[in-house]
Amino acid sequence: MPTTTPHPEQHLTSSAILQDVVIGLSDGLTVPFALAAGLSGAVQSSSLIITAGLAEIVAGSIAMGLGGYLAGRTEIEHYAAERAREQREVQEVPDVERAEVDELLAAMGLSAPTRAAAVRELTANPTLWVDFMMKYELGLEKPDPQQAPKSAFTISLAYAVGGLIPLSAYFVTPTPALGLLWSAGLTLVCLLLFGYFKSRLTGQPPVWGAFKMAGTGALAAAAAFLVARQFSGS
Amino acid sequence: MPTTTPHPEQHLTSSAILQDVVIGLSDGLTVPFALAAGLSGAVQSSSLIITAGLAEIVAGSIAMGLGGYLAGRTEIEHYAAERAREQREVQEVPDVERAEVDELLAAMGLSAPTRAAAVRELTANPTLWVDFMMKYELGLEKPDPQQAPKSAFTISLAYAVGGLIPLSAYFVTPTPALGLLWSAGLTLVCLLLFGYFKSRLTGQPPVWGAFKMAGTGALAAAAAFLVARQFSGS
Repeated sequence: MPTTTPHPEQHLTSSAILQDVVIGLSDGLTVPFALAAGLSGAVQSSSLIITAGLAEIVAGSIAMGLGGYLAGRTEIEHYAAERAREQREVQEVPDVERAEVDELLAAMGLSAPTRAAAVRELTANPTLWVDFMMKYELGLEKPDPQQAPKSAFTISLAYAVGGLIPLSAYFVTPTPALGLLWSAGLTLVCLLLFGYFKSRLTGQPPVWGAFKMAGTGALAAAAAFLVARQFSGS
Repeated sequence: MPTTTPHPEQHLTSSAILQDVVIGLSDGLTVPFALAAGLSGAVQSSSLIITAGLAEIVAGSIAMGLGGYLAGRTEIEHYAAERAREQREVQEVPDVERAEVDELLAAMGLSAPTRAAAVRELTANPTLWVDFMMKYELGLEKPDPQQAPKSAFTISLAYAVGGLIPLSAYFVTPTPALGLLWSAGLTLVCLLLFGYFKSRLTGQPPVWGAFKMAGTGALAAAAAFLVARQFSGS
């Protein structure tokens, strides 16, 4: 039987895309669905619901995508700034930094003699030393510069796709009430399926995951419906 | 002068709340603002914009809050499941796990003799051993069980507060066009201020942060406006 070597970076990349799809889809299926459901109880025209739904999808897609992109850029800048600071500290106050390495190793449970040897080795090479501080003191991994634009695009697209599913029902039904009926049916099925597969991917109980996802969508839609009806009725 | 001892957990908690406020506010200020702006170009009635805006705020607030709560619960379950797995592996395949500890220490840059002593000490106590694997192999910190409900509440509330700011303008203006004017002015000022202080808190350049935040909101609103007008005009 051939043994496969693990390929952690490949795995990281594909699960980062999957994570972005999950982020975009779960919000995209939920919020435009709930907005359209809410308006269904308050207005008489399907075209108005579609206009509001499309405006929301565009707004949410840009806000999430651009927000994700800028957050990714900030993470890269933050990592670079922290790394520069650690590099300076290693040069300027090496004794303080050496004591910090010793403290981290003590927290792991190493004895004083082992720590002494380990501190000597870890601080012998300034690059390794800074690497160690970044990862184990600050808990920061070097972010991939390609990740921010990729994430932005994936989240945006997933949000738009998710949002068009509940809205599509209003395109083909004559009244908002019928639109809501078909939209709710279609979206709840999608939320159940999506929750099921998302939970399977992350190793959680899938049936419970399906109900959590559908329950969140249903609750948001019901609340939006009640608020919109209350307000438009007054 | 009394010296204050550092209190890392306290610091973690307050910055977690702040992080949740930032998440809720940035989406709350952006998406309802852009939706209302979009509808301003497509409908004649301010009350319709308010109805849609309120429905969106309720939907978004529940989706984000409940979503955040459930994600927090999942994180706790995930940590517990991974910990149980590591505990099992430490008992059942101790040699494999010992080799993994050695590998992690080699990646830090430790020599073979130091690693041999460190592996012996780290694997002497099963609890410390599992702690080490959780933190340094899997990069998982024990999540605070109180965090999930707190996060949910904070994100929801911040989203609702953020969303009511752009919407408030439509309550006091006679036409959607005037509502949009005041809403855009008020919201852009809030986004600039919010971006400024958010960037200062995270140590980023604050003026650039202010423009990034306001630019995201303006772009989302402009796109929603164009799409809604395009659709309602056809």
